[in-house]
Amino acid sequence: MRATTIHGTRDIRVSDVPDPTIEVPTDAVVRVVAGCICGSDLWPYRGENAITPGDTIGHECVGVVEEVGSAVTSFRPGDFVVVPFDHCDNTCPHCLAGAQSGCVNLGFTASGQAEYTRVTQAEGSLVKTDGMPDEGLIPSLLTLADVFPTGWHAAVSAGVREGGTAVVVGDGAVGLFGVLSASLMGAERVIAMSRHQPRQELARAFGATDIVAERDQEGVDAVLELTDGVGADAVLECVGTNQSMNTAFRIARPGARVGMVGVPHGVDLPLYPIMFRKNVALAGGMAPTRKYLPELLDRVLEGGIDPGRVFDLTVPLDEVADGYRAMDERRAIKVLVQP
Amino acid sequence: MRATTIHGTRDIRVSDVPDPTIEVPTDAVVRVVAGCICGSDLWPYRGENAITPGDTIGHECVGVVEEVGSAVTSFRPGDFVVVPFDHCDNTCPHCLAGAQSGCVNLGFTASGQAEYTRVTQAEGSLVKTDGMPDEGLIPSLLTLADVFPTGWHAAVSAGVREGGTAVVVGDGAVGLFGVLSASLMGAERVIAMSRHQPRQELARAFGATDIVAERDQEGVDAVLELTDGVGADAVLECVGTNQSMNTAFRIARPGARVGMVGVPHGVDLPLYPIMFRKNVALAGGMAPTRKYLPELLDRVLEGGIDPGRVFDLTVPLDEVADGYRAMDERRAIKVLVQP
Repeated sequence: MRATTIHGTRDIRVSDVPDPTIEVPTDAVVRVVAGCICGSDLWPYRGENAITPGDTIGHECVGVVEEVGSAVTSFRPGDFVVVPFDHCDNTCPHCLAGAQSGCVNLGFTASGQAEYTRVTQAEGSLVKTDGMPDEGLIPSLLTLADVFPTGWHAAVSAGVREGGTAVVVGDGAVGLFGVLSASLMGAERVIAMSRHQPRQELARAFGATDIVAERDQEGVDAVLELTDGVGADAVLECVGTNQSMNTAFRIARPGARVGMVGVPHGVDLPLYPIMFRKNVALAGGMAPTRKYLPELLDRVLEGGIDPGRVFDLTVPLDEVADGYRAMDERRAIKVLVQP
Repeated sequence: MRATTIHGTRDIRVSDVPDPTIEVPTDAVVRVVAGCICGSDLWPYRGENAITPGDTIGHECVGVVEEVGSAVTSFRPGDFVVVPFDHCDNTCPHCLAGAQSGCVNLGFTASGQAEYTRVTQAEGSLVKTDGMPDEGLIPSLLTLADVFPTGWHAAVSAGVREGGTAVVVGDGAVGLFGVLSASLMGAERVIAMSRHQPRQELARAFGATDIVAERDQEGVDAVLELTDGVGADAVLECVGTNQSMNTAFRIARPGARVGMVGVPHGVDLPLYPIMFRKNVALAGGMAPTRKYLPELLDRVLEGGIDPGRVFDLTVPLDEVADGYRAMDERRAIKVLVQP
């Protein structure tokens, strides 16, 4: 099949690779209807994470079940499914406790920007729609594979409450879904920290009540001023750099929580001066996608929100390298890839 | 007055210092009936925290109100009071949100091992008993100034739930109160990590269901074995060293919380490999003592628990240096100081 592969820093290609197959009875193979590029794909793209040249890349997709292993009983060929980027059996003690991203049989989508992908733990991971969805709904359904549940997890981890003030650090796609999630959870005030006008607009469309364009000390000061010096009840950290993480802690009020979902890179936490002295907690991590999928799928199908708006560029699989360039240069918020 | 002062590493003296006075209208002066030595006093004692020679030391006490400032209306001379080590106005936005240790008017007891102490923010901080308590109750009431609420805060921060499994790292007095608190909160299993036989006994008396004497990898393995490989639902980190903190994270199950109350010293958190990948949160910090005092005072007065048992050595103020030595050498769990 044709699949996106990575060969070095900023070297993305479309290659012929072996078709995925049923390797164990818990597998399924899904024909990808739509995939997309994740902010976390940019780490290896920029040479900041190690790679093996020629590896497939891409972990977000929706599609149609092509084949299932013998242990998969709830899905059959032809089902339209959302494929969570992190696969889980949904039956182990960690899954039953709501920590599906810590599943003892954890797996990952390895070829979401391709024609086909293998889903390990298909029975526990996949969620299907009733029949084939309208084409116009595909982008919104695609957000359920990672970016929407990850933004939702940031809000859950930060302890967003009805009537509270939530601040979202980071205006990438995950940050924008943090805004949408905090808003859906009833935060009275949702402050988006964003310097980029198209992202500010989408943040407002997703429910941001305030925008703070400043960064670092000026950004901290702006949030404190907006909150009468109190700080945020809940902070959604959606970047993962040392700068963003420290901003997150400095805008948190005493007793607040920082919910992190950006993979931390080179972060030095303010353990004593803020976490201990101000009792600011750090929660979150890799999202338990499957945990949130039923609720979020319902919200997408009910309408009233349009998460698919996050895709401001669509490319055919053959031009996926252009999509990476557009995201790397921040010309696109999030790129949909059509196999 | 006579007060405990620190002059250098392992150099504790009893000195004549000026009597505390009402400096601002929110102050009170309390005559100390009983004070005690905190595990955190051992940091400067051992030379691991900077000191100013001649400074008073000691932040835990109960006593009788001697004098109040004009803004203090709920207390009068003669009232028996618990003095929280951290003083708060209990009216600022952080206090109202339950984060009293982040009060905008935060203050601290500075001479708890002395004849008198000044309480800043007396109106918001103090809690009184109805009349003078029985002498036998004094030790239990004294635990309310810091060590009991701090152990309670570890349990709250770790998210101890009824029926769950809590593991307490650290068998100092705070850790033992973590055991008591987790037990009172209804944890079905309370595992105390302790190598010292007298502390193991007290841990059992305070509700520990299991004792793990091993440390490091062996300790982690023992906890995992006790929990069928799952790990702890809630971990109370009651030490603050790099070793204890990393043990805490390694025994936490995915999605669990580590509640920290030991002042962190030289800690390198497992941010990516455990916190992010396993979604293990870190919460806690300096305890909001005043928040928990009404409930914990009720529990002490109701009886059925005997927190005062933690004091296994009592010294007169003149011999306070012996008390420090006994705690430093782990010959005593916690030392009561009688002015």
